[in-house]
Amino acid sequence: MKKFWIIKPVYAHCDLPCGVYDPAQAKIEATSVFAIMTKYADLSDTDKTRAIIIKEQRAELVKHHLGVLWTDYFKPEHVEKYPNLHELFWQATKQAGACKKSTDPAEGQKLLDHIDEIAKIFWATKKPA
Amino acid sequence: MKKFWIIKPVYAHCDLPCGVYDPAQAKIEATSVFAIMTKYADLSDTDKTRAIIIKEQRAELVKHHLGVLWTDYFKPEHVEKYPNLHELFWQATKQAGACKKSTDPAEGQKLLDHIDEIAKIFWATKKPA
Amino acid sequence: MKKFWIIKPVYAHCDLPCGVYDPAQAKIEATSVFAIMTKYADLSDTDKTRAIIIKEQRAELVKHHLGVLWTDYFKPEHVEKYPNLHELFWQATKQAGACKKSTDPAEGQKLLDHIDEIAKIFWATKKPA
Amino acid sequence: MKKFWIIKPVYAHCDLPCGVYDPAQAKIEATSVFAIMTKYADLSDTDKTRAIIIKEQRAELVKHHLGVLWTDYFKPEHVEKYPNLHELFWQATKQAGACKKSTDPAEGQKLLDHIDEIAKIFWATKKPA
Amino acid sequence: MKKFWIIKPVYAHCDLPCGVYDPAQAKIEATSVFAIMTKYADLSDTDKTRAIIIKEQRAELVKHHLGVLWTDYFKPEHVEKYPNLHELFWQATKQAGACKKSTDPAEGQKLLDHIDEIAKIFWATKKPA
Amino acid sequence: MKKFWIIKPVYAHCDLPCGVYDPAQAKIEATSVFAIMTKYADLSDTDKTRAIIIKEQRAELVKHHLGVLWTDYFKPEHVEKYPNLHELFWQATKQAGACKKSTDPAEGQKLLDHIDEIAKIFWATKKPA
Repeated sequence: MKKFWIIKPVYAHCDLPCGVYDPAQAKIEATSVFAIMTKYADLSDTDKTRAIIIKEQRAELVKHHLGVLWTDYFKPEHVEKYPNLHELFWQATKQAGACKKSTDPAEGQKLLDHIDEIAKIFWATKKPA
Repeated sequence: MKKFWIIKPVYAHCDLPCGVYDPAQAKIEATSVFAIMTKYADLSDTDKTRAIIIKEQRAELVKHHLGVLWTDYFKPEHVEKYPNLHELFWQATKQAGACKKSTDPAEGQKLLDHIDEIAKIFWATKKPA
Repeated sequence: MKKFWIIKPVYAHCDLPCGVYDPAQAKIEATSVFAIMTKYADLSDTDKTRAIIIKEQRAELVKHHLGVLWTDYFKPEHVEKYPNLHELFWQATKQAGACKKSTDPAEGQKLLDHIDEIAKIFWATKKPA
Repeated sequence: MKKFWIIKPVYAHCDLPCGVYDPAQAKIEATSVFAIMTKYADLSDTDKTRAIIIKEQRAELVKHHLGVLWTDYFKPEHVEKYPNLHELFWQATKQAGACKKSTDPAEGQKLLDHIDEIAKIFWATKKPA
Repeated sequence: MKKFWIIKPVYAHCDLPCGVYDPAQAKIEATSVFAIMTKYADLSDTDKTRAIIIKEQRAELVKHHLGVLWTDYFKPEHVEKYPNLHELFWQATKQAGACKKSTDPAEGQKLLDHIDEIAKIFWATKKPA
Repeated sequence: MKKFWIIKPVYAHCDLPCGVYDPAQAKIEATSVFAIMTKYADLSDTDKTRAIIIKEQRAELVKHHLGVLWTDYFKPEHVEKYPNLHELFWQATKQAGACKKSTDPAEGQKLLDHIDEIAKIFWATKKPA
């Protein structure tokens, strides 16, 4: 799980007024969701309540960041090149919802895997031709 | 400006219930603030208004993410080792405020520089001894 | 423009803990976006700024409500039956973004049309077989 | 419980910059509060916590949407014609607070009833003379 | 304008789970709205946009804090004793809306006056009999 | 615990566009955190969950209001005169975090004490020389 991953600040030119996108935002929140799950079983009752509150918020942030990538960053030419892109985002966002409902780290890992897959496509589209 | 920077998902063990911290969150929002500034002069009136709204929100997110690092991640032993840590966070957070008030990219660059300095200390504290 | 449309409170049974979905939420916010656009040209400078602030928020709420329908309400069997569902939501959410950037009522109308199309599918899936 | 209710997009002309009001917004959130209550008893511990978190948020949204109707939509001539309007909104908003504190569907039903009463007055004021 | 006013932390016992109410919260935000108005005319274009954004948020916070007082703190016996209480809150909240639409300090002053009137009643109800 | 404390609306002139700061905002939210803690032990299970949700939000608001004071209000000359100012804010904000994790009123009292100390410095800096 200790894999490194490279993040490059992005300067897309298509969008006003900012054009900065980065799958790291979804990844960091999802990592937090996952970390909460791995600790959940050993928490006190009060901390369990807090864990669920915070997991709920972080999973919602994952959804938000995924939504930004899906509809603000990705363009029709990307969808043409990656025809499963919509399905991928749908699964990933649904999985963020599944993580709200679960405390099983396996669900959190699935979310991280979905985001990694999206990140791969994201960075492929940033590569110079 | 096209520098790469390495981001490692963090699994700190000190905090309940999550322990995931990453200066990339502040950096991405600050990069967005900076990007808005570089585009501001050429925008239409309506877009200028939007740019200010969004810059305001992003700069506030920078403040939030800095605050999380400063008071949730950093511990007394870090402050002891890096005695200027408080001042550094104060300057960086003040600079995020300055970026709300300005549309000069130089102000955005200063914010990025402050965050880079914090990130350097952050990663130094994550290094194995 | 004075068309009526029927809204039925929904009691879906698939989801915990609420299961209440309704495209009216996206529609009302989109109607507000559209109304702001129709009034924009005649506003004072100060009111123009306010109009853009509020339009920005309402369009974001449209995005949010669409996201809830797309990933919380719709299930794989719906996607199978309506293969363009993902594309439809993508276009609608992108259009909400386009409405942030524009003050042209025609853009707002397109958003309303997209939502109407989604609402039609939504209500079709609620019909008794 | 399967009653239909008609919702007409509203184009009030009094207010800048939007003028779109609709009691459906409060009703949908209140329906969600009610639905959570009807399911609460059968939920697991973790889901009970989530149910309370979400009920809290939805009830707060009910309050917000009621507040918008009360102070943005309704005008002195309405209050003159419906002298119990203030009391009605007070009771409804207090009931939204009561729903935060309770998991009894009867409390949720009371909230729905209050909103229905307000909606009746709302639509009466929209009728052509 | 340099009047002092006394604030006593309140420990009401009626409500779960907090019972801390204080009209100072609405007053401070309203004072901020008023201060923005007094400075507005002399601001640069960019700062004018920011001023409107921030005034919008502060006026919304006034509405929120007034709503909490009105429906969480005040009880039927208070309404009986102060029969104009509903009207007073309605006017004050409407005035917060008016302050969103205006940059005239006179409108901000009216808001402050309404809140002062509410505060007087609030503190009267806290007095020992 | 029934101590009075004086609040003066502040009209600082340094900052655009508002310049209204007041430690009462942090104090009121912290008082609410403390009040929740004193009631926690006697609450029902459902109310305990709500108490933790609300305590979490209020403690976050304390952090927010402290951040505003620290980086928007206080200036280099204040830090020079009160060299422990940064440490004080760090401790106070960390204590707000500690209050999220605890239901012990002693933790809430420590938070109130930290805020009182900050308030003392704040008002000292407002005094005419």
